[in-house]
Amino acid sequence: MSDEPAVERLPLRHPRGVTHLVHGEGALLAASDELAEWLAGRRAFVVTTPVVWRLHGGDLAAPLAAAAGVEVLEVAEGEAAKSLDEAQRLWRRMLEAGGKRDSRLLAFGGGSVGDLGGFVAGAFLRGIACAQLPTTLLAQVDAAIGGKTAVDLPEAKNSVGLFHHPFAVVADTRWLATLDERQRRAGLVEAVKMAFLLDPPLFGAIEATLPALLDGDAAALAETVPAAAAIKARVVERDPEESGERALLNFGHTLGHALEAASGYEGLLHGEAVAWGMLFALRLAARRGLAAAPAARLAAVLGALAPPPLPAISAEDLVARMGRDKKAREGGIGWVLPQELGRGRWGVKIPADELKAELEAFLADPIPG
Amino acid sequence: MSDEPAVERLPLRHPRGVTHLVHGEGALLAASDELAEWLAGRRAFVVTTPVVWRLHGGDLAAPLAAAAGVEVLEVAEGEAAKSLDEAQRLWRRMLEAGGKRDSRLLAFGGGSVGDLGGFVAGAFLRGIACAQLPTTLLAQVDAAIGGKTAVDLPEAKNSVGLFHHPFAVVADTRWLATLDERQRRAGLVEAVKMAFLLDPPLFGAIEATLPALLDGDAAALAETVPAAAAIKARVVERDPEESGERALLNFGHTLGHALEAASGYEGLLHGEAVAWGMLFALRLAARRGLAAAPAARLAAVLGALAPPPLPAISAEDLVARMGRDKKAREGGIGWVLPQELGRGRWGVKIPADELKAELEAFLADPIPG
Repeated sequence: MSDEPAVERLPLRHPRGVTHLVHGEGALLAASDELAEWLAGRRAFVVTTPVVWRLHGGDLAAPLAAAAGVEVLEVAEGEAAKSLDEAQRLWRRMLEAGGKRDSRLLAFGGGSVGDLGGFVAGAFLRGIACAQLPTTLLAQVDAAIGGKTAVDLPEAKNSVGLFHHPFAVVADTRWLATLDERQRRAGLVEAVKMAFLLDPPLFGAIEATLPALLDGDAAALAETVPAAAAIKARVVERDPEESGERALLNFGHTLGHALEAASGYEGLLHGEAVAWGMLFALRLAARRGLAAAPAARLAAVLGALAPPPLPAISAEDLVARMGRDKKAREGGIGWVLPQELGRGRWGVKIPADELKAELEAFLADPIPG
Repeated sequence: MSDEPAVERLPLRHPRGVTHLVHGEGALLAASDELAEWLAGRRAFVVTTPVVWRLHGGDLAAPLAAAAGVEVLEVAEGEAAKSLDEAQRLWRRMLEAGGKRDSRLLAFGGGSVGDLGGFVAGAFLRGIACAQLPTTLLAQVDAAIGGKTAVDLPEAKNSVGLFHHPFAVVADTRWLATLDERQRRAGLVEAVKMAFLLDPPLFGAIEATLPALLDGDAAALAETVPAAAAIKARVVERDPEESGERALLNFGHTLGHALEAASGYEGLLHGEAVAWGMLFALRLAARRGLAAAPAARLAAVLGALAPPPLPAISAEDLVARMGRDKKAREGGIGWVLPQELGRGRWGVKIPADELKAELEAFLADPIPG
């Protein structure tokens, strides 16, 4: 590991202003002065988990020292935190602690902390400013970027939420050192997804450094994370609220969300469910012109990421769950399918009988050959 | 009452597009085709109260016939509907009924229905389009215009919410005929507020027609409501998310919100609490240069609107509640004070000892002389 911070900065322009992206090894230190200035004299609320706070909370000491007061709001790990009850508990604590319109919120943790924290910030007193400090690979390359926030209802994941663009996303790849390997593999899925559809050179680089990435090699992560985050940022800039191209980033997510829901958000991590969703989408894409070679390359990378087995679930159940996905419209589900390496389509309609037959075949034999 | 609809149309341009304002006698009929086109082939959710739906639901039959399906979501009358539990109940029913991103929501009722319905629309699947169909005077001239939505927490009113601009605000003054007189008086307070600060000719017109307005005279209401709504629309256009001038519209609301909270949202209607808040602000303004003549004119109109007596509450309690108001910032409460008829200031800081002394004097003798 180098002593010199290797940090990439990228502005993400959106309709409400700019989000400052700071990604890489030593990103927190590099952004510390800006965060301190943003916090100066304000009340700061840190939404985090007990584990993240214990492992890395000390890193925030310098910027938080500038705040008028700091309230640490610890929430449960994982999807369990993303409930309206939890949001309400945080809002009430923020009111009790004197939270105001000019207070600040920092979401410091993985994707669930970012989703919940961003939502809580976006609706508190009709919106206070927030910063995303993602500590997992998945959140650093994907979830923390682009202003999407949400909590879950029992019926469907992310069914209540809003767009609330953060002031900054500060993603220090040093925080990834404490991730377990399963979390790292699941997070890599989203980087693979974006690289395959939007950045063929990065996809090649991921293929080449996959063993190092799986090992959590700091240099490999410090290369790949800012590059993947930059893809996401460019897509969000071009289509901030997903009226078009941003839908590409849902590659693997239609079936992925249904698999997560079917396993009660406990069996599969989000990235693992998305990996299965991408493998299924490859089957649909193969019938629509995707060549065998790029499909095999993607399947090989996803295979190396080794998601756990699929939960026992019927095709009927999955179809019903996909119909309730928030991406669905009255006209039906729009699928994201790759056309070739570096190019994909969104909004693809699949006939109901084809979908059911393919799902049944997929569930019976998810990785053929 | 004339047979010819007297309807005023006004576009309200905001950062996300345009809201179509249609105000006056026969507004619903005049906007029926546009609403039908907007609903065509979509699932429609109507958030309303049992009373409004029984009295006026038939008016919506024509536009709703164009929808692919209609789900009527009845909620409680008044502030009781504005809870996160109620929002969650509606979101779950919307998911069960097949609600999608391209579904539509119509908020059909008073200010509380509009606040709740707009919030539910704004956060369902990260936002679906909504229309505001306000049926009370307060909502027609003020609450339904400008995209503010919210629910309450036990600690503070409107403490959770977001900006979600509606597709249209259709305010048929015929619906006001079924309001009881108390609701009408309370709603007039907001029209008086805007006219006094921003439109002296309208303030004069309200003074001149006050007996007819209090009687619910259809012609007088059909004149005043579109004029007051137009003031609000112009302010919102210039300052959509209240970074400046829109704060003027909080005249009377700092103390008003505290009075509502102190009475558990049951003793005083919103407009009544705001009337008391304006009377109190006149005391602070008198020490800062507001002449006696315009102050006396405003006090006379508010006196004619006859709000019920103040609840028994201490100055200390009110000061504490105002400190928790969502308008408050770390620097303290910013008051809105009139400077003369047609001109006011916002963000005025009042020293704590002056505030307490004035509040004590006000509570002891709210309408001196």
